Amino acid sequence: MQPCFVLVQPQMGENIGASARAMWNFGLDRLRLVSPRDGWPNASATAVASGAGRLLDEALVVDTTAQAIANTTFVFATTARHRALTKIVYSPERAMLESRKRLSAGEDIAILFGPERSGLDNACIARANAVISVPVNSESPSLNLSQCVLLIAYEWYRHGIIGVDRLETMPKSEWATHQEVESLAAHYEQQLTTAGFFFPPEKSNRMKQNLRNLWSRIPLTRAETQMLHGVLRQMARERNKDSQA
Amino acid sequence: MQPCFVLVQPQMGENIGASARAMWNFGLDRLRLVSPRDGWPNASATAVASGAGRLLDEALVVDTTAQAIANTTFVFATTARHRALTKIVYSPERAMLESRKRLSAGEDIAILFGPERSGLDNACIARANAVISVPVNSESPSLNLSQCVLLIAYEWYRHGIIGVDRLETMPKSEWATHQEVESLAAHYEQQLTTAGFFFPPEKSNRMKQNLRNLWSRIPLTRAETQMLHGVLRQMARERNKDSQA
Repeated sequence: MQPCFVLVQPQMGENIGASARAMWNFGLDRLRLVSPRDGWPNASATAVASGAGRLLDEALVVDTTAQAIANTTFVFATTARHRALTKIVYSPERAMLESRKRLSAGEDIAILFGPERSGLDNACIARANAVISVPVNSESPSLNLSQCVLLIAYEWYRHGIIGVDRLETMPKSEWATHQEVESLAAHYEQQLTTAGFFFPPEKSNRMKQNLRNLWSRIPLTRAETQMLHGVLRQMARERNKDSQA
Repeated sequence: MQPCFVLVQPQMGENIGASARAMWNFGLDRLRLVSPRDGWPNASATAVASGAGRLLDEALVVDTTAQAIANTTFVFATTARHRALTKIVYSPERAMLESRKRLSAGEDIAILFGPERSGLDNACIARANAVISVPVNSESPSLNLSQCVLLIAYEWYRHGIIGVDRLETMPKSEWATHQEVESLAAHYEQQLTTAGFFFPPEKSNRMKQNLRNLWSRIPLTRAETQMLHGVLRQMARERNKDSQA
């Protein structure tokens, strides 16, 4: 289950389309429209929505906010400004965590977004159970409608894929084992010893340690250890060739 | 301190303006542009940026990505697609936490955003130390440039409000700048070319890219780059001595 996003009296078709697209970027497809200014359907919305056209086709279009949220159990109002209404204010992150909790307990959730120019009016906000406020730079607080939808949708999706924040590697990469790195380090040490790099003798242990320390900090794949062995072999081969010449 | 956002070969002025505005929504104002398609300044960018016009006026405009990141110590590449380059992939959240830690330890951070149509190319990604990938619905993965900027900037700002732990570096360790790593990479490439390592010719570009990609993953101190230059010089000297013998 997922929350439904309710655009209240949206003005520009382009913004409705961009909002649908932003929702679908993050796997959300329950769109409701309250009295869109230019009527419905809207060709500009469809043009902008591109791959998210289905959301527009399936959108519930109603006359009043009350109808749009009638069968939901918990309603968030998005607003940038602080109003003279006493209301819990959630960050997008906390609001989406709360939504997931409530949805999994069988509730239904709506999130209200206001008209482009004015935002939600106090009558709408008063109907909401809580407010979502996106933290922004006070010198530049205006987000447009589809940007606001994008950020809330992103927060929804982000927490769905959590345990989040895994460190991932690109596909096909297989990390080198400690032993493989060790044998690479030994190969370098041996070649550099031959090349007379560890000089003067009283500093050689420290130099070797610095080099080992560096190896240990590199996250190496198996293919890369093989490449680096190849680098060394080629330089040694070249040297021998030179010296025979 | 804050990271700089680098737009690599952006195409539409509108997108540059919208990106500047999205940055400033979240208090970020260090913008760098690499070779914008339609030249600079750009009237469309200014029209869209509205309150964030200052970012455009103060933007550093350069010809190459290497110039844009020359004096930074850690570079993130934003990319949606998985590439055949082994690289740590961060979520936007973890990337911004990591950036805050590194910045507070005196580092400078760049975040690369690719051209609208194609995204960053592999040569750019190979130069980056890590990748940021925004988690999206696989059925609708395309975010536009300014949306991607918006989400990363939002994550930056969000964690500034929460506050984070500081990361301490080892005493006396001073990270190498991108330029220092670049010059080390060039030194290796030159020496390995001399040694005939990049063979056969049709594979040489791929081999060079793999090597560059490896450099970018190593967290190198300045002292270590000097040591590695020394390794190369010593091996070359040894080779010349052998060939004279």
